[in-house]
Amino acid sequence: MRINKYRYDGSGPFKLSDYDTGLGEKKPDKKKILAQTEKNVVQIAALQDKLYADSKESVLIILQAMDAAGKDGTIKHVMSGINPQGVDVYSFKQPSSDELAHDFLWRIHSKTPPKGKIAIFNRSYYEDVLVARVRELNKTYQMPQRCTGMSTEKFFDKRYKHIKHYEEFLYDNGCRIVKLFLNVSRDTQKKRFLERIDNPAKNWKFSSSDVKERGLWDEYQKAYSLAIEHTSTKECPWYIIPADKKWFMRYLVSEAVLKALKSCSPQYPTLADEEIAKLGEYKQMLENEDTK
Amino acid sequence: MRINKYRYDGSGPFKLSDYDTGLGEKKPDKKKILAQTEKNVVQIAALQDKLYADSKESVLIILQAMDAAGKDGTIKHVMSGINPQGVDVYSFKQPSSDELAHDFLWRIHSKTPPKGKIAIFNRSYYEDVLVARVRELNKTYQMPQRCTGMSTEKFFDKRYKHIKHYEEFLYDNGCRIVKLFLNVSRDTQKKRFLERIDNPAKNWKFSSSDVKERGLWDEYQKAYSLAIEHTSTKECPWYIIPADKKWFMRYLVSEAVLKALKSCSPQYPTLADEEIAKLGEYKQMLENEDTK
Repeated sequence: MRINKYRYDGSGPFKLSDYDTGLGEKKPDKKKILAQTEKNVVQIAALQDKLYADSKESVLIILQAMDAAGKDGTIKHVMSGINPQGVDVYSFKQPSSDELAHDFLWRIHSKTPPKGKIAIFNRSYYEDVLVARVRELNKTYQMPQRCTGMSTEKFFDKRYKHIKHYEEFLYDNGCRIVKLFLNVSRDTQKKRFLERIDNPAKNWKFSSSDVKERGLWDEYQKAYSLAIEHTSTKECPWYIIPADKKWFMRYLVSEAVLKALKSCSPQYPTLADEEIAKLGEYKQMLENEDTK
Repeated sequence: MRINKYRYDGSGPFKLSDYDTGLGEKKPDKKKILAQTEKNVVQIAALQDKLYADSKESVLIILQAMDAAGKDGTIKHVMSGINPQGVDVYSFKQPSSDELAHDFLWRIHSKTPPKGKIAIFNRSYYEDVLVARVRELNKTYQMPQRCTGMSTEKFFDKRYKHIKHYEEFLYDNGCRIVKLFLNVSRDTQKKRFLERIDNPAKNWKFSSSDVKERGLWDEYQKAYSLAIEHTSTKECPWYIIPADKKWFMRYLVSEAVLKALKSCSPQYPTLADEEIAKLGEYKQMLENEDTK
């Protein structure tokens, strides 16, 4: 599977700049890729139906990216085949005061998927080691000295550890996590921002604050690199998905999601023998009903 | 502080049977103990008021015990001095189907206290390594093979680890945890059950299922012993409180809670100099108001 090339499971060193944002050296055939994506979307929907019926395991898909990398479009295109009863999408914006009064996983945990369902996190608790690190929010938290009285590096090293433990916990309790970083280049982001400004139909997507965050591009790349390096494990790896070409990105996302669903190998439940024996009775009851 | 005798922080071996359920060798003076408890209750209320004003830290009190050890009465007597705005009590009974569809910490996490508040858990996620272990519920969970396909011992070793990680996480995020095991003897439980049967005003507290669980006394003692041994740390120790004499138990609980509140050392927030300067202005405004 081509997707393994973009998978990092914590073994060996990690450098975000080693990863392509575009098509790589061996250019893929766009037509074939589009056809394969379509097939994957159908397969995803079929497996989700089984996952729901089986209700033993759940899947949590985490999408992280710089602005304009295409998170929303990816959700729309890859996940639209799924029965909406089996999937929930949650966007995590700036935390409310009630959320800030709790630990940073509190608002997250309540949204984790029940067995049989898929949850998609459009941004997630990783913001608490990304924007929080870039903006050094650790220095602003209302917390006791023992929690924040340390270097920024040490503070976030602890958070990485807690995230790793948390994901290990979810995994051990029947939740599979698919972590996707949509890796867009600085040039592509610029192009897409300009489109949002020039095209009136896209104006609503433009926010001046996005341009401000763009000014911190290098700091964000560093924060992503560190977060991916310190929270990737065999059970909960990160996928660093090239995002400059949307059709290629969506294909790779569909591959990663499909891979996770396949490893759940969900099955339609089968009835016990006595129950199967009774089905004949029920059939007869139905057929003997008066047809008025 | 006498309470340290009953504290286990994970260092050295642990055996539940080493701990007193009664008054121990050096009998405490009941009159003095009752007076000290009263003083502690007043101090707890005063510190809670500061904790609420400071809003940097929270306190989670976990009560676990065999039936009739006196959990409810302890909450009533030790915590009744507290402003109810600053404290919440949650009882965790058999999980609902919605709760069973998630990991065992899911229903718990949503009830953790926000900064400035105290939460009391009357039973807790520890039930998932106590009754769950005694009844081997791990063999009944609807979960994938990778989560349950192991020995009962291994399954619960993992749970202990996850609990330890979870508590470390809460602690690092501003929540202090006070874990109290009310250690009642088999004889005392019998005596209290008989009271519940003989005294019509106490009949409502009696449940036949409690007698059934009593039949598994040794298994429960073993499960408590293992849970305490494997989840005690310097930051989140267990207190093994002798529970045969209610007045002594309540005193020790008040000591443990007081100790935790003191280590938070909450302070009333102070205003910045400019704000203090403005107070004079506001005072004048109020005084200059027309008195009609």
